[in-house]
Amino acid sequence: MKINLNADIGESYGKYTIGADPELMRLIGSANVACGMHAGDPSIMMRTVRLAQENGVSVGAHPGFNDLWGFGRRQIRMNPQDLEYLITYQIGALQALARAQNVRVTHVKPHGALNNMAHDIEDYAMAIGRGIKAADPDLIYVANAGSQMTRAAARLGLRVAHESYVDRRYDDNGKMLSRELDNSVIKDPEEAVAHVMRILEERAIFSTSGKRIPCEVHTFCIHGDEPTAVPVARAVRQALEAADIRVVSLPELIQ
Amino acid sequence: MKINLNADIGESYGKYTIGADPELMRLIGSANVACGMHAGDPSIMMRTVRLAQENGVSVGAHPGFNDLWGFGRRQIRMNPQDLEYLITYQIGALQALARAQNVRVTHVKPHGALNNMAHDIEDYAMAIGRGIKAADPDLIYVANAGSQMTRAAARLGLRVAHESYVDRRYDDNGKMLSRELDNSVIKDPEEAVAHVMRILEERAIFSTSGKRIPCEVHTFCIHGDEPTAVPVARAVRQALEAADIRVVSLPELIQ
Amino acid sequence: MKINLNADIGESYGKYTIGADPELMRLIGSANVACGMHAGDPSIMMRTVRLAQENGVSVGAHPGFNDLWGFGRRQIRMNPQDLEYLITYQIGALQALARAQNVRVTHVKPHGALNNMAHDIEDYAMAIGRGIKAADPDLIYVANAGSQMTRAAARLGLRVAHESYVDRRYDDNGKMLSRELDNSVIKDPEEAVAHVMRILEERAIFSTSGKRIPCEVHTFCIHGDEPTAVPVARAVRQALEAADIRVVSLPELIQ
Amino acid sequence: MKINLNADIGESYGKYTIGADPELMRLIGSANVACGMHAGDPSIMMRTVRLAQENGVSVGAHPGFNDLWGFGRRQIRMNPQDLEYLITYQIGALQALARAQNVRVTHVKPHGALNNMAHDIEDYAMAIGRGIKAADPDLIYVANAGSQMTRAAARLGLRVAHESYVDRRYDDNGKMLSRELDNSVIKDPEEAVAHVMRILEERAIFSTSGKRIPCEVHTFCIHGDEPTAVPVARAVRQALEAADIRVVSLPELIQ
Repeated sequence: MKINLNADIGESYGKYTIGADPELMRLIGSANVACGMHAGDPSIMMRTVRLAQENGVSVGAHPGFNDLWGFGRRQIRMNPQDLEYLITYQIGALQALARAQNVRVTHVKPHGALNNMAHDIEDYAMAIGRGIKAADPDLIYVANAGSQMTRAAARLGLRVAHESYVDRRYDDNGKMLSRELDNSVIKDPEEAVAHVMRILEERAIFSTSGKRIPCEVHTFCIHGDEPTAVPVARAVRQALEAADIRVVSLPELIQ
Repeated sequence: MKINLNADIGESYGKYTIGADPELMRLIGSANVACGMHAGDPSIMMRTVRLAQENGVSVGAHPGFNDLWGFGRRQIRMNPQDLEYLITYQIGALQALARAQNVRVTHVKPHGALNNMAHDIEDYAMAIGRGIKAADPDLIYVANAGSQMTRAAARLGLRVAHESYVDRRYDDNGKMLSRELDNSVIKDPEEAVAHVMRILEERAIFSTSGKRIPCEVHTFCIHGDEPTAVPVARAVRQALEAADIRVVSLPELIQ
Repeated sequence: MKINLNADIGESYGKYTIGADPELMRLIGSANVACGMHAGDPSIMMRTVRLAQENGVSVGAHPGFNDLWGFGRRQIRMNPQDLEYLITYQIGALQALARAQNVRVTHVKPHGALNNMAHDIEDYAMAIGRGIKAADPDLIYVANAGSQMTRAAARLGLRVAHESYVDRRYDDNGKMLSRELDNSVIKDPEEAVAHVMRILEERAIFSTSGKRIPCEVHTFCIHGDEPTAVPVARAVRQALEAADIRVVSLPELIQ
Repeated sequence: MKINLNADIGESYGKYTIGADPELMRLIGSANVACGMHAGDPSIMMRTVRLAQENGVSVGAHPGFNDLWGFGRRQIRMNPQDLEYLITYQIGALQALARAQNVRVTHVKPHGALNNMAHDIEDYAMAIGRGIKAADPDLIYVANAGSQMTRAAARLGLRVAHESYVDRRYDDNGKMLSRELDNSVIKDPEEAVAHVMRILEERAIFSTSGKRIPCEVHTFCIHGDEPTAVPVARAVRQALEAADIRVVSLPELIQ
């Protein structure tokens, strides 16, 4: 059995450093690289691509709203067409920097508030999908199972990877609880391991109220900016390997 | 005989409009499209690529400093490596948006203060060249004849198009006079025609003091943000055609 | 009888020009000056303060979301406390620039999407009010009658000026129709005159469906970025004067 | 005897944290608060003002170039008048936020590349001075002794505090060595103590080549973003107190 672990990476900016990128890179299969709008800058993108390459980690784009102050976590209402081009812009910027290192961008995962909005809003999910397809129709659209994004991917003929989270809890609609809620983030490595293994065994995610939401998960995300990210990721990776589940890159998993 | 006319295009931003893009597109052979740093945004970039396509105009990237307030006209001292990646970033963003329209980006022309600094500063000229080469080694580097940029292009094995200006006067070093000087910009269409034809006939540009600087010009630039841009461009185009000099795109000219 | 006319002014940015500021300044009593977040920059702010001073127009702050690309017209969900400080920041910047010209900032009018959101969202209306009060408790809060903003002003002990629009139509809740609707903006000067005079005579605004919403209007806004702004403003000003209604500044009107 | 210690503070931005602000605040007499252009945002500015207030530390503005990516450390050539208004804008924003806490802004210290340029360029030093005076003529201009800034302050009738650095070495012109040079930053607490005490005893700074540059220092700066900032600051503070030199705020020192 195979699975993918992904993390949001390269979210530093200029003199500002965030996240434990070098440590996380050793634990994941695929990296979602910030593209300069909510975080990241050209130099950090290049450094991150190289770090991924050194660790045999596949590279994806992690486009977000153009909102550095809000770190892409503020919901912005915008025209879907502007959003579509904003997505292609960010992917293209990363593609060119990656090409300079002979690295191919193979997936796209929307960031933060954009990801949350696209979970529910068809226009956003489709705009992102069209923006992805324009940049490269072979890109894998990483999306929460059951979201508008997975539907958009299907309609547009894009490959999709169903994503769940190593470290987040869910509501009855299968949507992540807001970070502002106390119990939304799992910080204990053992709890995270139990959480991940249950999802894989039961082929379902479970809401905080206990509702079972069937779901075939391809990839688990670790939030790189949590201080507990590295121990949580390490514990999950070890548990997966102990259970003979191989952590692979997204292009290896999604054919 | 063949020549290229180019203009900086797509320099609007959000609700802000600048330049007479639709009119200029009918007169030029190649468009330098702003890439979101000194001007331009993803939606304007897409609209500009389509406009170029409709007019049979070839598309180039027009990267600048990340300085919207200064419209890329403030000199910024930065690390050449950061500059290199900033260039690749901008080209890549445009490449992806152009690809969505089946358009290929075929040249790169640095903007404003970046262009001025790279004229003289080898590190900048080389950083831009490396940034171009990383994005696509077939791109044409549009550069003032005799500048550090033409030397950088030669060292990096990039094709180069020698540029002069329809509407600007020069100092004895073959460098454009600063816009802040009264006589730096040619606003009269007839004067612009005489200026262009003399450069082509004499195979040289002439400084305001009368110095002759030998120079094989491939492309003449029109500054799109001058209010006189359209009449000047129209007069020059007509004069060229009357002299049996065909206005072609850069990839047609530079093999 | 006295009334105020206000307009959003100083919304240019760097090399980008928008609006007919010098013409509008001759027709209004109070100017809402953009503060560098959705539009405006320090130099334009200073130039606008001087222009107001020359025309005997009172100066207000026109704070918006930090969203230049969206011109402050994209709704952004943010923490009310961050919003409060963002408001104080913008007012303070204008206060200092105005002080340099011996001009006092006397009112605040939120811009675009922020104004729309604060119409309905109590947290936003209160955050803006607290941000105003922190900068100067004597500032007049310009707000749509019946909105959360007028309630916030009352709770915070701030003076309020009820605003209506010279050039916009309303829904049954007394809220402006979205600009995206065809009939939302009144572009015909005569229609604008009839619209304004009816509101003053009937002491009420009227929705497009005909609903009468009682309302004592202190100030009418003209949208400076509409191409029809100047003729509309001129016609309204002349009609007011013909009806012996004096156009005065906000501090003259709201004691 | 009395002396001031200052540090650049509040240079975080949104989700990005930099510097050891709470620790440094306990050791300094005056804080230079970033104002949202090279670093800082309205919420961080407010939090920093409160932290200064709690520690009895006087508050100054720390304006910089509008260059978040470069953290204000990239030299930007700009029009002095634009610079003047950019300075007043930043000071005004901080003044309003401070006023909300009943705190008065009492000094101004330019940041990074702006400070370096203003050391030598009269136009910049004067533009900063005029920008300070416009915001409040009682503000203290913190400037390197012998720089264009001290001259500008004198010409404009502004009070000046001569600054030296706890942790930086100098060239023969009394200018700080570039951070890019290996020996430019003093990271060892004992060395910093010796460096500071020598300047005070000899009433002069000394270049790396040994040149003595006479200089009455009022305030020593600690660079808050150096990892060694806190131990260096603590050692210097203790040494000063041991020598019966009281660390006071700038308004206490400069009457």
